[in-house]
Amino acid sequence: MSPREREREGERERRDLGQQVEGRHAVRELLVARKRRVNEIWLSGDSDEIEQLAEETQVRIRRVPRDQLDRRARTDAPQGVVAFAAPIVPADVDALLADRAAFLVALDGVTDPQNLGAVMRTAETAGATGMLLPRHRAVGITPAVTKAAAGALEYLPVAFVSGIPGVLERAARAGVWCIGLDGGAKTSVFDLTLADQPLVLVLGAEGRGLSRLAAARCEVVASIPMHGHIESLNVSAAAAIACAEIARRRSVAS
Amino acid sequence: MSPREREREGERERRDLGQQVEGRHAVRELLVARKRRVNEIWLSGDSDEIEQLAEETQVRIRRVPRDQLDRRARTDAPQGVVAFAAPIVPADVDALLADRAAFLVALDGVTDPQNLGAVMRTAETAGATGMLLPRHRAVGITPAVTKAAAGALEYLPVAFVSGIPGVLERAARAGVWCIGLDGGAKTSVFDLTLADQPLVLVLGAEGRGLSRLAAARCEVVASIPMHGHIESLNVSAAAAIACAEIARRRSVAS
Repeated sequence: MSPREREREGERERRDLGQQVEGRHAVRELLVARKRRVNEIWLSGDSDEIEQLAEETQVRIRRVPRDQLDRRARTDAPQGVVAFAAPIVPADVDALLADRAAFLVALDGVTDPQNLGAVMRTAETAGATGMLLPRHRAVGITPAVTKAAAGALEYLPVAFVSGIPGVLERAARAGVWCIGLDGGAKTSVFDLTLADQPLVLVLGAEGRGLSRLAAARCEVVASIPMHGHIESLNVSAAAAIACAEIARRRSVAS
Repeated sequence: MSPREREREGERERRDLGQQVEGRHAVRELLVARKRRVNEIWLSGDSDEIEQLAEETQVRIRRVPRDQLDRRARTDAPQGVVAFAAPIVPADVDALLADRAAFLVALDGVTDPQNLGAVMRTAETAGATGMLLPRHRAVGITPAVTKAAAGALEYLPVAFVSGIPGVLERAARAGVWCIGLDGGAKTSVFDLTLADQPLVLVLGAEGRGLSRLAAARCEVVASIPMHGHIESLNVSAAAAIACAEIARRRSVAS
């Protein structure tokens, strides 16, 4: 087989086998959640936990040498495990906005897969009820995102929208409070009058921060107080702090 | 010149030019902080801010083609700028522990450079007064760490210790409160009786969490409440939340 033919063959097999989920955390949650069909798992080395979960869910494990798995993997460190699964089903925006307990996280143009996955992981642990992502000009749900999300994608509904400013307008009409996060804002995220109202937390892209258009659609724009010399937090650290604060206030209020 | 000779030549030049600092954030803070000698900056493309700072600090800028800079870079995305600087000078552990306003962050065996750099960046913005890192069996201060720290390394004193449990014992003797962070702990980090006492926050390695030995040396071990399905946070997200909470309490207490 020529390299080109081999590549085509690989492409075909990939399509047939489905979306790749890589890394121990992500594959474990894929099997635990049982939200989507898992076609096959490639494993090099041992993992009692994954082997047992695969047996329980009747998913076939294919043992492959480490170098073959690493060549097939689409992330840097698949940790000896790659699962092939049906793609995630996008959530419906209006359903997410209609939830009286909505705690949504909107990411306006985040381009780094590590950051997107990290925000998903933090949002899920904070009890977020969904993510809003722009359909274009941002990173998609790649294997790198899935791995960094460490299983959060199996639980956290994700809706794709044509633009974040537009969906914030819809959110406001649905009675969902829009809170923007931006390093330049004077209000501290710790001083917000947060309780258990439905809300969407809006984060901007790395470096540029919240877009003017998105900021204009927020009821309030808040920042995380900075106590050192450097000016800004990474978007995933900012999301972690803001999501944890929202979770804390909601658990006090409930 | 043979490839081997070229490599040696490269090694020699690297040693002569000093530690590599890459990426716009990290290089900007290197020039703003003026804590260590900067030998030269390689720039491809334009950066008004870095060019102006270099002029103010009388640092030579060498214009190089993008591909030459990328080859020389030791991180994936140097963003068109690499500075060569004197190595950072490690801090003295006892001096860090003697500070009555000590807010230290100890990392027990974190091996991922992105995570180490991210924790430094968050700690610095939270007003931490220093980092405690094990000398062995953990990631060193590589260009990838320096870039992820986004300039925090220029301000945040870093002390290297032979082991985290040992330094926690010294901390306790010095009257510094040791707070461990571990996903399995029952106490919430939001319920700690935190005020303005000197403290060290101790974080374990990715995956494994806090070591038993380190946990045993902590006055209290706390966790970040989880509100979703997935079990754990990434170490850098956990550090961000805990550092922000400590900063919040200290700013209320002061």
